[in-house]
Amino acid sequence: MARLVVVGGSAAGMAAAAKAKRVNRNLEVIVYERSRYVSYAPCGVPYYIEGLVGDINDLVYYSVDYFRTKRNIDVRVRHEVLDVDPKARIVTVKNLDDDQIFEVEYDYLVLATGGRPLIPEGVDVNVEGIFTLRTLEDGERIKAACEKAESVGIVGGGYTGLELAEAFRYRGKRVTLIQRSYPMRRALDPKVSHDIIDELRRHDVDLRLGETFLDVERRAGSLRLVTDKDEYPVDMVILAMGVRPNVDLAERMGVELGVTGAIRVNDRMETSVEGVYAAGDNAETIHLVSGRPIYFPFAPAANKMGRVAGDNIAGGNSRFRGVLGTTFTKIFDLHVGRTGLSEWEAKALGFDATVVDINHISRSHYFPGSKRMHIRLIADRESHRILGGAITGGEGVAGRVNTLAAALWGGLTVEDLTQLDLGYAPPFAPVWDGLIIAANIMLREL
Amino acid sequence: MARLVVVGGSAAGMAAAAKAKRVNRNLEVIVYERSRYVSYAPCGVPYYIEGLVGDINDLVYYSVDYFRTKRNIDVRVRHEVLDVDPKARIVTVKNLDDDQIFEVEYDYLVLATGGRPLIPEGVDVNVEGIFTLRTLEDGERIKAACEKAESVGIVGGGYTGLELAEAFRYRGKRVTLIQRSYPMRRALDPKVSHDIIDELRRHDVDLRLGETFLDVERRAGSLRLVTDKDEYPVDMVILAMGVRPNVDLAERMGVELGVTGAIRVNDRMETSVEGVYAAGDNAETIHLVSGRPIYFPFAPAANKMGRVAGDNIAGGNSRFRGVLGTTFTKIFDLHVGRTGLSEWEAKALGFDATVVDINHISRSHYFPGSKRMHIRLIADRESHRILGGAITGGEGVAGRVNTLAAALWGGLTVEDLTQLDLGYAPPFAPVWDGLIIAANIMLREL
Repeated sequence: MARLVVVGGSAAGMAAAAKAKRVNRNLEVIVYERSRYVSYAPCGVPYYIEGLVGDINDLVYYSVDYFRTKRNIDVRVRHEVLDVDPKARIVTVKNLDDDQIFEVEYDYLVLATGGRPLIPEGVDVNVEGIFTLRTLEDGERIKAACEKAESVGIVGGGYTGLELAEAFRYRGKRVTLIQRSYPMRRALDPKVSHDIIDELRRHDVDLRLGETFLDVERRAGSLRLVTDKDEYPVDMVILAMGVRPNVDLAERMGVELGVTGAIRVNDRMETSVEGVYAAGDNAETIHLVSGRPIYFPFAPAANKMGRVAGDNIAGGNSRFRGVLGTTFTKIFDLHVGRTGLSEWEAKALGFDATVVDINHISRSHYFPGSKRMHIRLIADRESHRILGGAITGGEGVAGRVNTLAAALWGGLTVEDLTQLDLGYAPPFAPVWDGLIIAANIMLREL
Repeated sequence: MARLVVVGGSAAGMAAAAKAKRVNRNLEVIVYERSRYVSYAPCGVPYYIEGLVGDINDLVYYSVDYFRTKRNIDVRVRHEVLDVDPKARIVTVKNLDDDQIFEVEYDYLVLATGGRPLIPEGVDVNVEGIFTLRTLEDGERIKAACEKAESVGIVGGGYTGLELAEAFRYRGKRVTLIQRSYPMRRALDPKVSHDIIDELRRHDVDLRLGETFLDVERRAGSLRLVTDKDEYPVDMVILAMGVRPNVDLAERMGVELGVTGAIRVNDRMETSVEGVYAAGDNAETIHLVSGRPIYFPFAPAANKMGRVAGDNIAGGNSRFRGVLGTTFTKIFDLHVGRTGLSEWEAKALGFDATVVDINHISRSHYFPGSKRMHIRLIADRESHRILGGAITGGEGVAGRVNTLAAALWGGLTVEDLTQLDLGYAPPFAPVWDGLIIAANIMLREL
């Protein structure tokens, strides 16, 4: 009986394990996970801290017990894979509860070691009151600490930083958010990010843009968040400066990395080492609009990658095609979504990008409750191909972003979008949907 | 100076007039409209009757005055075009206020005569208490009548019938709805329609399915709705049995009709008669999934057709590609949407259609407020191409239907949909969006 060993039990790892076992019941599947949790939703942690999710266990999709008894997958939590000998196909594992170290042979290995928080050199995150957020256990620590805190400093205006700003404000904390440039800089153009800035200020987040984080100092029992421009006394600090692929084990094994620093894989999720697959936030993928490698550590891609790896290991023939860069979030009452390339990304890649911004409404003008919506559409002036879009508003944002994502997948042009048969009903959309209006305006200028 | 005459001032007619004038300021544009209103939203009338829209004028996008003074378009309401001599390019017009009849020459003509309610032979809709709904004036009459009514009989379970059922129930009326087969039979498969039946019953609509409407009788001052199975005493009756193209004028002019009975046009919206265009609910179009002619009397298509006609008349070169059959509606708390082909449509067209139904959720399972969602996906077993889909649920329906519409436009396959990079955030979507789960399940069976 062939054996699959999966290193890491979050989204990608458990997707790989479950899919492999489902396709090939004869495969022995073992998962080693360092933490106490597998198959969980780290994206839900801000809502756990906010109090919308009462029990941390609600963020677990399937329990260890479920995988063991119902799926016949040998899940071992609190087990760390220390090393891999890819020639001999042996993993060295440590049981973190009893410190026992043992070896296990494998036929197939999936590296699903995930990502890790980006921490500037010299900052010691083990100091009391300094936190990063990746795991449910991080979430438990942050929630416990924030019960006693009155003020929180957040470094970083990406998804995690912004969602935590909301959570802490709703918990009544004073929140200072430090960001070197502008919120969601990697995903959005400044014009779209401005909607986020307005929303943060409307909810009394003390937003410090254009400041570079330097350090957190603990003096006489109190924390001080230090930037290049100022110092902020706070009760706790969250470093939410981004995610990097956790590739320590891969590097030690001699698995090739890609240009992004994440593990290089083909579309079957195979690494450069035979029998070794990678999936999730440690793996590189392809951006389907640019055609370039991208590091895109988001759960839907991780799940799909894991599923593809598992299927191929079990004898299937699945391909992970890549990503479009689609992401959503909610910041207080503002829905934000984007897909494809932003203007700055498109221009950096050499596209002759043209951009239209419109303000429109989410329902027919006469239907109660209509919300304002800002749509930014980006297209290639030469081919007229849509390159991306970003939308903010009070409702109907996610669906329109996904509609653009499907349009990107199909390679639709601006002309196509002007003609697209989108639905209309007064409670859900005006008769001319904002996406079509944006395309019509863009077409006039092409 | 060339002159464009537009017959009909609703969506298509005003879109044609406005676009033509915008592209070519030197064009003289005259619009003749029989009713008192132009550029209005008949789809909003149920919400006016329901009371969500307070003033009927809120359903007007732009006033006659706006078009006259700001857009320099000569709009004449209460004017009926009696006849057209396409050889001499002359229209004969009657001013309905003073009964004057006059002739006007044109260089270009747009027939935007819209649709008319389908009325069974022998039923006299001029009898007091019997209504159809197409225009704002119909809406005003229905609203006035329903103030005094306690019970309403609705014949027809399409969009209008269902939306009116909601409106009358929310106004506290007893509602009997007669439908020969099942609600939205032309748009949905029975399995999806069943969700609507449940919702109607939950809101105490007296639903009479499998009954054929025969007549409305007025005896001793009271109305009686008669079917092949029963009789229902009601205070008023709405006949909402569907829409037919209003092609009387077109036929008299010798304009060719298509197989659907609507005016045959090319993708520039040109009819068989030189200089004569048609747009809106009187015109036939192409279904982009089946490639076949279709009569699709919905406002977004009418608006686009009008815009394309106007652009071409003004010297532009626009094409109306066709429709995907995308429609939304809301029936009480149930959101309903569909695009592409239903199973029965696909099979009737000769596709080897495969179908998957799933029940899923609109948000992450742990995020408060998640609503149940039923997704039906239809694909071609041979090519794996997605043919259509229908979704019902409590939120997030419209966006997912539009996402499928964009996927249909791009010719995406089931495999594509399994890989599609749809966004994820706990308030808006689970990490595996229902569309992707449906595609994954379907792929297992292909």
